[in-house]
Amino acid sequence: MTEKKLAMENLPRTLELVKDAQGTQVFRYIDERFLPQELKMVETTSWMQVVDAIKTLAVRGAPAIGCSGAAGVSLWFADPDTSLDDFESAMDTIANARPTAVNLSWAVKKISGIARKAMDEGASKQDIAELMFAAVKEMEAEDEAVNRKMGAYGAELLNENSNVLTHCNAGSLACSFYGTALGVIYAAAEQGKINRVYSDETRPVGQGARLTVWELAKANVPVTLICDNMAASLMAAGQVDAVVVGADRITANGDTANKIGTYGVAVLAKHHGIPFYVAAPLSTIDFSLETGAQIPIEQRNPSEVLPMPIQGVDVWNPAFDVTPAELIAGIITERGVFKPTELDQLR
Amino acid sequence: MTEKKLAMENLPRTLELVKDAQGTQVFRYIDERFLPQELKMVETTSWMQVVDAIKTLAVRGAPAIGCSGAAGVSLWFADPDTSLDDFESAMDTIANARPTAVNLSWAVKKISGIARKAMDEGASKQDIAELMFAAVKEMEAEDEAVNRKMGAYGAELLNENSNVLTHCNAGSLACSFYGTALGVIYAAAEQGKINRVYSDETRPVGQGARLTVWELAKANVPVTLICDNMAASLMAAGQVDAVVVGADRITANGDTANKIGTYGVAVLAKHHGIPFYVAAPLSTIDFSLETGAQIPIEQRNPSEVLPMPIQGVDVWNPAFDVTPAELIAGIITERGVFKPTELDQLR
Repeated sequence: MTEKKLAMENLPRTLELVKDAQGTQVFRYIDERFLPQELKMVETTSWMQVVDAIKTLAVRGAPAIGCSGAAGVSLWFADPDTSLDDFESAMDTIANARPTAVNLSWAVKKISGIARKAMDEGASKQDIAELMFAAVKEMEAEDEAVNRKMGAYGAELLNENSNVLTHCNAGSLACSFYGTALGVIYAAAEQGKINRVYSDETRPVGQGARLTVWELAKANVPVTLICDNMAASLMAAGQVDAVVVGADRITANGDTANKIGTYGVAVLAKHHGIPFYVAAPLSTIDFSLETGAQIPIEQRNPSEVLPMPIQGVDVWNPAFDVTPAELIAGIITERGVFKPTELDQLR
Repeated sequence: MTEKKLAMENLPRTLELVKDAQGTQVFRYIDERFLPQELKMVETTSWMQVVDAIKTLAVRGAPAIGCSGAAGVSLWFADPDTSLDDFESAMDTIANARPTAVNLSWAVKKISGIARKAMDEGASKQDIAELMFAAVKEMEAEDEAVNRKMGAYGAELLNENSNVLTHCNAGSLACSFYGTALGVIYAAAEQGKINRVYSDETRPVGQGARLTVWELAKANVPVTLICDNMAASLMAAGQVDAVVVGADRITANGDTANKIGTYGVAVLAKHHGIPFYVAAPLSTIDFSLETGAQIPIEQRNPSEVLPMPIQGVDVWNPAFDVTPAELIAGIITERGVFKPTELDQLR
């Protein structure tokens, strides 16, 4: 049992689009590359800086880069130096800042669709910027609301006194606020159901070691950090009652792309008879793809794995892997928990 | 196929007991904590420094710490400041420098047995030091000879054009020379059978990222470094034909303790139908223990995982795990390849 009370109030919002005293749109976000050493809040009016923040993992996590991309679109309209002639190419630049999470292209498509309609109706760039601002604020609020709904559904799956393993960071830091997989944990912790969370460090970028442990500790949830390669031993020792992770893209058949290493954890969970859950908003489901084999997997720089190259040594550094539907006990969404085979009814 | 010829001559001996110009015993070893940036050779006449080198992982790997422990015993006898009255406690200190690998206590027991017999026969400390020196040299030569035999047996298990995954470093750097698991790879590479070796980085100490890739590249074996959590994806992509690892202790039933993460790799190999081999000299088999549950597992400092502590965040850092016999396709020894269930015939 948690000895301390859940303290979500200790967690800052990860990102939000605001207006400053002059009414100028400003995107405010945590530059997560500095965590856990420093909680660095950054403010920018530059849509290109938002693209850069997504590319460099200053903001990361599927829902967070969706909201960030949308904010980028809004800043693009608010920027006096952009021209409507460049609209389509700017949208492409934002939507393609990273390839794997579908939430980014989903969010940009959704919000730019509103803009396109307004342009067709002859609205001014400034008017559209206001429309965009309102749409982004709605998206941020919706993100948190959806997370809280997923949390409530997911918490029902956990027993009293649960030890839960998670991989990467699908937490408040991966969203505007609250989290997907960690949202489930926060909701369960509020009900006193969480004994302890185990966080894989999640090499090479360390989202578990730097972000998940930081936010769980801030929120008073008991947390133990392990290296990725310790999960099997932990399971064999009977220390894991359930695995809950997030998702970057789910295909129509329930195959799920998530941070590299997720697939291995799912195989280990199956071997040990431990339920493996994916928590993800419906916006993560890409019905245009039938199976996970069609999901583009981002390959990142070898220097993430090997900062100082060694002569004659190659590096393989995929950022994501695909967990086949048959290893997933349930997909936790804002509309309830579904078996992967049941996703079709949400189409 | 390897394009370059295997070049074992590029690899220095990892450790050896020698005599300097004055006839003084000197233990020379690679301080592996500086690899891959620096190949640092250290020479010492101090038996306590040998103990310290084992404790701090300056020398590591089951066969290597066996030979090092034996060299420590020899240096103890050669040291004019030690007293035979302290013999038993010194032997304990050396044998218990690390708990999991049985080779260390095996080697110290073997060599100190020779000393004990000579003491009973009234030999002088100086004479025993000479005896010890000869015994250590024999042990070092035997270590390499055993490795080469295991290499020959193991290479027979691999097909042409093999991609082999290994975990941790069971290479030349884990022995006096040549290696156990990597000995199999060197022998197979000499026969042109190795297409590529994949090395898990092996958190938290990075024996794969720092040592395995370094020695394989030195020896001209094509090698790709991956994070521990990428092994599952690599297997799913059909890029792994066999897994070969070393061992720190094997119990009578074939359960095998090895570097943390090995067990997970074995589960993944089983799931993907990939054979999982353990290469280990007979000295690694501890017939006094029936099952792996009896093997002491060393817990190391949390700072290895989390160099800068985070308030409220615990760390679990076992250095080893136990792979159950049923996941092991074969144990490669200097007497041939055995199913775990066949070990009893070696008793």
